[in-house]
Amino acid sequence: MHEIFTMKTTFKTIGIIGGMGSLATAALFTKVLNLSGASSDAEYPRIFIDNNTTVPDRSEALLGRGESPVPALLNSAETLAHAGAQVLGMPCNTAHAFLPYIEASLRVPLVNMVSETVDAVALRYPSARVGILCTTGTRFSGIYDAALKAKALVPVNPNDGEQENVMRAIYGAEGIKAGNITKAREILLPVCEKLIASGADVIVLACTELSLAVTPEVVNVPLVDTSDILAAALIREARILI
Amino acid sequence: MHEIFTMKTTFKTIGIIGGMGSLATAALFTKVLNLSGASSDAEYPRIFIDNNTTVPDRSEALLGRGESPVPALLNSAETLAHAGAQVLGMPCNTAHAFLPYIEASLRVPLVNMVSETVDAVALRYPSARVGILCTTGTRFSGIYDAALKAKALVPVNPNDGEQENVMRAIYGAEGIKAGNITKAREILLPVCEKLIASGADVIVLACTELSLAVTPEVVNVPLVDTSDILAAALIREARILI
Repeated sequence: MHEIFTMKTTFKTIGIIGGMGSLATAALFTKVLNLSGASSDAEYPRIFIDNNTTVPDRSEALLGRGESPVPALLNSAETLAHAGAQVLGMPCNTAHAFLPYIEASLRVPLVNMVSETVDAVALRYPSARVGILCTTGTRFSGIYDAALKAKALVPVNPNDGEQENVMRAIYGAEGIKAGNITKAREILLPVCEKLIASGADVIVLACTELSLAVTPEVVNVPLVDTSDILAAALIREARILI
Repeated sequence: MHEIFTMKTTFKTIGIIGGMGSLATAALFTKVLNLSGASSDAEYPRIFIDNNTTVPDRSEALLGRGESPVPALLNSAETLAHAGAQVLGMPCNTAHAFLPYIEASLRVPLVNMVSETVDAVALRYPSARVGILCTTGTRFSGIYDAALKAKALVPVNPNDGEQENVMRAIYGAEGIKAGNITKAREILLPVCEKLIASGADVIVLACTELSLAVTPEVVNVPLVDTSDILAAALIREARILI
């Protein structure tokens, strides 16, 4: 019973609305653990994860071709809050386009990965031209374009053919959701090179799956990984100094 | 709506009683996903994880020096069942020593990692001499010794000094729970070599943290990783053929 008086950090219980996709959720979980600074079981944060693979595809919904993910997202948020989560994270950028439809119903605060990312880019790379790799749903929603412009940053987007390749790398049989990291990387690198050729000073991996395939050593400009940003923000929001 | 008629596999919802330790829980999560055969978000199993870092240390309790983990384990099991889990896994071998005190209260079946492991060893290596790397709590509980002998396998345990080194590699400041994989491996390899010198035909990594540090390429006999066994058993038990 002594340790509680000597511990310097403890954490609120974190809830993760996951499954979009599953591998990105597992990667975020590991990142949160590694950032916690824990060195024994009890020092790690308690984390509830709902790897909810019943959430309808977010891009399809945004493009008007599929059902809304909102009820499933609210179900996950409520399940996590009921279990005891005190702060939520959702490692899916595309799902953030639906935040206006879920925020009012949340019992527990949710860390906004999109605004956290854009704030971090504005701080580190003020006035930069910012290349965006994301799903077609995220692109169509305009959430990154709007948030970047609001911070005096300049969005640089792939053209339509390149955007199709990004989707193939995420969703295709040779893509990340199917576990084919190497092939996805081959598809994504030329898109990154094109963004750089179009003036991007920095590239945001604005889909949590992408950091599984695109890593700093293979790209010639700084990469901002939304999954890293969310992990750090969750640890910051959950940390309790005692 | 068409896919539901062409899908070949779906899964019951899996619940993971985790946090013992956190990194081992994240590793199990990734293994379950990789074994699922999924190639799109919806094909992965829905998984609830309670990374419950409030569970008192299992070894300390077994050695009569700490409080029982049973209430916290039951709390996790109930939370996961309430969330919708239909089959449970608990990636902590030491916690399995408490199964007799929790099984009767479970609403949802729990895959027994210890019996799954021993069954797998008996099938692949009949009559083998089986080296056991585990916590001192697991060792003291005798759960592996008893289960191996019941299957006509011969347990080979480290001596007391080596067992202390195993605990240092798991729990120490230079250990796995603190994220120091390389140093833990340096401590564990001589213990593995001694088990082999004592006649072990195969070594069971009977603590889920150990597979983070001890891998097949560094040991001269086959390794059986209880975390791999649990992941495969969870996928087997959760799979629904439709």
